Amino acid sequence: MIIVTQPHATEDQIDRIIARVREFGLDAQIIRGATRIIVAVIGSDGLAREKPLAAMPGVEAIIPAPKPYKLASYEFRGGASSVPIGNVKVGRTENIALISGPCSVESQEQILSIAKTVKKAGASILRGGAFKPRTSPYSFQGLEKDGLRFLAKAREETGMPVITEIMDARDLSIVEKYADCLQIGARNMQNFSLLKEVGRSHLPVLLKRGFSATLNDLIMSAEYILKEGNMNVLLCERGIRTFENSARYTLDLNAIPILKSRTHLPVVVDPTHGIGLREYVPQMSMAALAAGADALMIEVHNAPELAKSDGEQALTPDIFEELVPRLRAVAQAVGRTL
Amino acid sequence: MIIVTQPHATEDQIDRIIARVREFGLDAQIIRGATRIIVAVIGSDGLAREKPLAAMPGVEAIIPAPKPYKLASYEFRGGASSVPIGNVKVGRTENIALISGPCSVESQEQILSIAKTVKKAGASILRGGAFKPRTSPYSFQGLEKDGLRFLAKAREETGMPVITEIMDARDLSIVEKYADCLQIGARNMQNFSLLKEVGRSHLPVLLKRGFSATLNDLIMSAEYILKEGNMNVLLCERGIRTFENSARYTLDLNAIPILKSRTHLPVVVDPTHGIGLREYVPQMSMAALAAGADALMIEVHNAPELAKSDGEQALTPDIFEELVPRLRAVAQAVGRTL
Amino acid sequence: MIIVTQPHATEDQIDRIIARVREFGLDAQIIRGATRIIVAVIGSDGLAREKPLAAMPGVEAIIPAPKPYKLASYEFRGGASSVPIGNVKVGRTENIALISGPCSVESQEQILSIAKTVKKAGASILRGGAFKPRTSPYSFQGLEKDGLRFLAKAREETGMPVITEIMDARDLSIVEKYADCLQIGARNMQNFSLLKEVGRSHLPVLLKRGFSATLNDLIMSAEYILKEGNMNVLLCERGIRTFENSARYTLDLNAIPILKSRTHLPVVVDPTHGIGLREYVPQMSMAALAAGADALMIEVHNAPELAKSDGEQALTPDIFEELVPRLRAVAQAVGRTL
Amino acid sequence: MIIVTQPHATEDQIDRIIARVREFGLDAQIIRGATRIIVAVIGSDGLAREKPLAAMPGVEAIIPAPKPYKLASYEFRGGASSVPIGNVKVGRTENIALISGPCSVESQEQILSIAKTVKKAGASILRGGAFKPRTSPYSFQGLEKDGLRFLAKAREETGMPVITEIMDARDLSIVEKYADCLQIGARNMQNFSLLKEVGRSHLPVLLKRGFSATLNDLIMSAEYILKEGNMNVLLCERGIRTFENSARYTLDLNAIPILKSRTHLPVVVDPTHGIGLREYVPQMSMAALAAGADALMIEVHNAPELAKSDGEQALTPDIFEELVPRLRAVAQAVGRTL
Repeated sequence: MIIVTQPHATEDQIDRIIARVREFGLDAQIIRGATRIIVAVIGSDGLAREKPLAAMPGVEAIIPAPKPYKLASYEFRGGASSVPIGNVKVGRTENIALISGPCSVESQEQILSIAKTVKKAGASILRGGAFKPRTSPYSFQGLEKDGLRFLAKAREETGMPVITEIMDARDLSIVEKYADCLQIGARNMQNFSLLKEVGRSHLPVLLKRGFSATLNDLIMSAEYILKEGNMNVLLCERGIRTFENSARYTLDLNAIPILKSRTHLPVVVDPTHGIGLREYVPQMSMAALAAGADALMIEVHNAPELAKSDGEQALTPDIFEELVPRLRAVAQAVGRTL
Repeated sequence: MIIVTQPHATEDQIDRIIARVREFGLDAQIIRGATRIIVAVIGSDGLAREKPLAAMPGVEAIIPAPKPYKLASYEFRGGASSVPIGNVKVGRTENIALISGPCSVESQEQILSIAKTVKKAGASILRGGAFKPRTSPYSFQGLEKDGLRFLAKAREETGMPVITEIMDARDLSIVEKYADCLQIGARNMQNFSLLKEVGRSHLPVLLKRGFSATLNDLIMSAEYILKEGNMNVLLCERGIRTFENSARYTLDLNAIPILKSRTHLPVVVDPTHGIGLREYVPQMSMAALAAGADALMIEVHNAPELAKSDGEQALTPDIFEELVPRLRAVAQAVGRTL
Repeated sequence: MIIVTQPHATEDQIDRIIARVREFGLDAQIIRGATRIIVAVIGSDGLAREKPLAAMPGVEAIIPAPKPYKLASYEFRGGASSVPIGNVKVGRTENIALISGPCSVESQEQILSIAKTVKKAGASILRGGAFKPRTSPYSFQGLEKDGLRFLAKAREETGMPVITEIMDARDLSIVEKYADCLQIGARNMQNFSLLKEVGRSHLPVLLKRGFSATLNDLIMSAEYILKEGNMNVLLCERGIRTFENSARYTLDLNAIPILKSRTHLPVVVDPTHGIGLREYVPQMSMAALAAGADALMIEVHNAPELAKSDGEQALTPDIFEELVPRLRAVAQAVGRTL
Repeated sequence: MIIVTQPHATEDQIDRIIARVREFGLDAQIIRGATRIIVAVIGSDGLAREKPLAAMPGVEAIIPAPKPYKLASYEFRGGASSVPIGNVKVGRTENIALISGPCSVESQEQILSIAKTVKKAGASILRGGAFKPRTSPYSFQGLEKDGLRFLAKAREETGMPVITEIMDARDLSIVEKYADCLQIGARNMQNFSLLKEVGRSHLPVLLKRGFSATLNDLIMSAEYILKEGNMNVLLCERGIRTFENSARYTLDLNAIPILKSRTHLPVVVDPTHGIGLREYVPQMSMAALAAGADALMIEVHNAPELAKSDGEQALTPDIFEELVPRLRAVAQAVGRTL
């Protein structure tokens, strides 16, 4: 941490700043410049100390220690991690995982049929929502426990592991019974109670970036899960909110190389939500692979015009089948397989 | 809802669009323009119907019914509401409520002392966090149950009703025991499980805007609470995330007149988080009143440089005391009292 | 400037960094921490030196000198400035200036009539566009030279000084002939050729903030004008682009106290563009005054529904007349006059 | 254009709305719904008419005709265009153009050396700035005319056509003498005087997206150039401003498929500015190709740590040489060449 003083900070103020630093059990070095003084704090500083110091008279700015996370940092592992979802490895492996399925589970028949279709086309993991976070209380809220059972049946018939969202800590034991990977949705990325709870689960967690979370916010939320002992976390970029209104969100592909240099955790991209318009999902899927994504999560629905949620962005099975070979070509171009 | 077709939509596509509208039990009127056809849907349309229609071939855009909320709408009440927090009315009343206190409850002594100070200066409601949502798992997480007890004691000694944050549905019964108003923090604004839960509480709810939530998102989250039967909801503007990096957030005062024209719910402003820098909180507090806020929530801490959270933005008691008469002058200038 | 090294920077890299700093004629002090080294650069550093240093091997981050501007800084004057627009002083004076008029000059009759109306209601400066920057080439582009003549005539009849926009350096001599203050529009805030040109004018310059310019960008653009010798610059907040879509822009009132602490230049607020919806302009005008604005710029049009530009946001004369006494009350509440 | 009335609009208000529509020479059709009336306007409506109508009493919203541009629209050509830059075609062609060179021309030797290097590595067009738009007036402003001469010499020696930025309409004749393609920088995207001027040039124009311009704003600025008769316009995505602060800008690759569906103009991507950090430029370059870019513009500098501008983002020749074969592999994977 570096403390920059105001141009006219008094000697008395500076003495008190240094005294406070030492109260925290840290050491301080002082540099006197032409117009201001810099106090370099040495030792393991943390957020709890930055803020009180920032509030002291004479302080102009605190430059925080660059990385507030530990367990999630690339340096912690010294390399990329591989996270198992059922029998599929995601991350430090040549193979790129293709996660697919509908936004919501709507019936046993629907999820079975889509599961078979996407598996045949090349998907290796099945996604489907049983508990649905919806902006409106009047929208379809998911089949809940029935949805989970339908997903488990689809896993049984296709062999694909299942990812599904958990919205409430009280549902953990039931979701754990049926799923292979827990999804934390964008709106719950900073629901810290829920993060701590899934941090105690034996299942891996796919953590979606909040649509206005910085990359460091996302990593800090992963740190909540890791700190509880669950080291199997995947980070998912799914679009951020910007002034641009041509698409529902702005897919932030800068996130891929940046996250991969800061953390050891696998990076998943959800192009479906990231652009939100079916016709452009193929291009953004290929772009995500070229930028280094470890997995793609793509919505597919047999009859998007009948879907109970997000129908305008799901691919039809035909388009998905036609897309997979193109994804394979891009994967190969960047030295991976799919 | 209005459906705009693509320029070259076929008659067959249009027939299917109209058939679908009628399947939903709605009526349709068709207008043929020079280059495209408009289908006006008549009846009570909802989100569940918009999206499947948007996914149909031949559809260019769906213009949703302007207001997706009902119970929160201004028209529902035909005027502003007044929400009681303990013995204080907020909203449709001449008086502007001043909510004050520290970010976190840190000890019995601390909260008692601050409560007495702010009451004397003019505050009528006490705020303080017992459960703290923190970006980092390594930051202070609050005194939890002890914090609640300390707050209740401060209420007993000062007579001020208490607002405190709830982060987990499982804590509702304990928080209800000690608080007069439940706060939903910005990071939980779309934690729909929690919204439903507080919708069943007998206590009023202060709902903070997510820092990247649109005003309609905020109103829809209020609608979740109202729909469960709890009609005492207050909306709180507390700053949004933008590209501007001079302050922690951009306080969006446009929100005040817009929310007050769209809903009947009282509008509270939190200038402390909205600009995040102590020295500018007074100006933004006065601006919020001038724009029509029904209440202000201002952080005060006896020793900001020792605060366990957000010290750089809390006012000292001296500055707060000096501010209150200036707030009164602005309140009077806009025809209200404080 | 502070240079923070990467955790594993080599001694050799650090030596080269220090050598480069000295090549720039600056001095360097080195602090060795647990995991990284900090090089504090002493002397008058500038942007031209930061970037090459940032590109050197071993450098993790450059923390720039906090203020890249000089002539615009508060410290340069040690107090607020007052800028004369014709016979009206704006800035370091008790009185708040009220700038009013239509978006575009449409005819001699129109501008004369509006000028008289706003003057009678309390405005002291007349605004009106003769050259109009329009997003679409098919929109009305202004009356150009005729518009300027009509403005000058309105000044003659009412005694109010005139502000008008200049879009092209080649128009400077003609605009200077008719106007009392040059306006640089938001879209030209970083048209550096134009900034240099108006920096050589004898007229004051009202510089509008680009709708995605940071406050420091705005101050740096002012610095371009000041550097050419024109010290009469006014900064104008007029709304920024954010994800919020309820209003055309988000009026950033945080800008007022922040700009006033960083610079000596007067701060003008344009609530008309900042919220873009007529019905909310009064509230935002009062809020701007309460936050400390030195002047307000409010669009008024006799017949907004016939206006050739921005009709939906201009106040009618009736609403403007009714607003002025409310503005006076707020000005008085914050210790000023209007 | 569709006019939606307020819920309680009177018959009298609606009659006046319709009368106004007819005054504009347009036709109107009326649909009466349960709570509001819709007026569909038929005929070639334009922005000049929308706004006055939006200001009329009884109007709640105007839904504009979806596409306010004409000459730039995909439908205008019914396919993609190909724009020649010297002897290189960009756009509707299998080949993807690689534009490369330094941010600023710094000397004859520098530009010659870089030109030869990038040509050998695979670039087909040379870029380099002679007039530099810099946020600070104290930063290097370019070699101006000398820079242009050095560029022309580099073209002579390498055979590569040259792109360079024009910042001031008064420089057009001199820039035209030396360049093969005019660049309009992000900060001048809405400098409408300059757009009109280059619209009269015989040279193609590379138009960079303003960092807070919507895609429609960008297309409208292209329309300004096209309307003057210059049909050779290329659109360039170069990153937008968002709340994310990990990189200088957020490269918006959603822009590629959206622009290509809306317009016939070629789409160029500048990953160098779009992420602003050298180490991530390769990944974002490959992603841009995979998403469908027609050309890439990548900064290369022989000695980035000595560069007079933007050194931290330029690739070294080594990294560039190593990148080109990877770009070729991705181009091939999406059915193109490079």
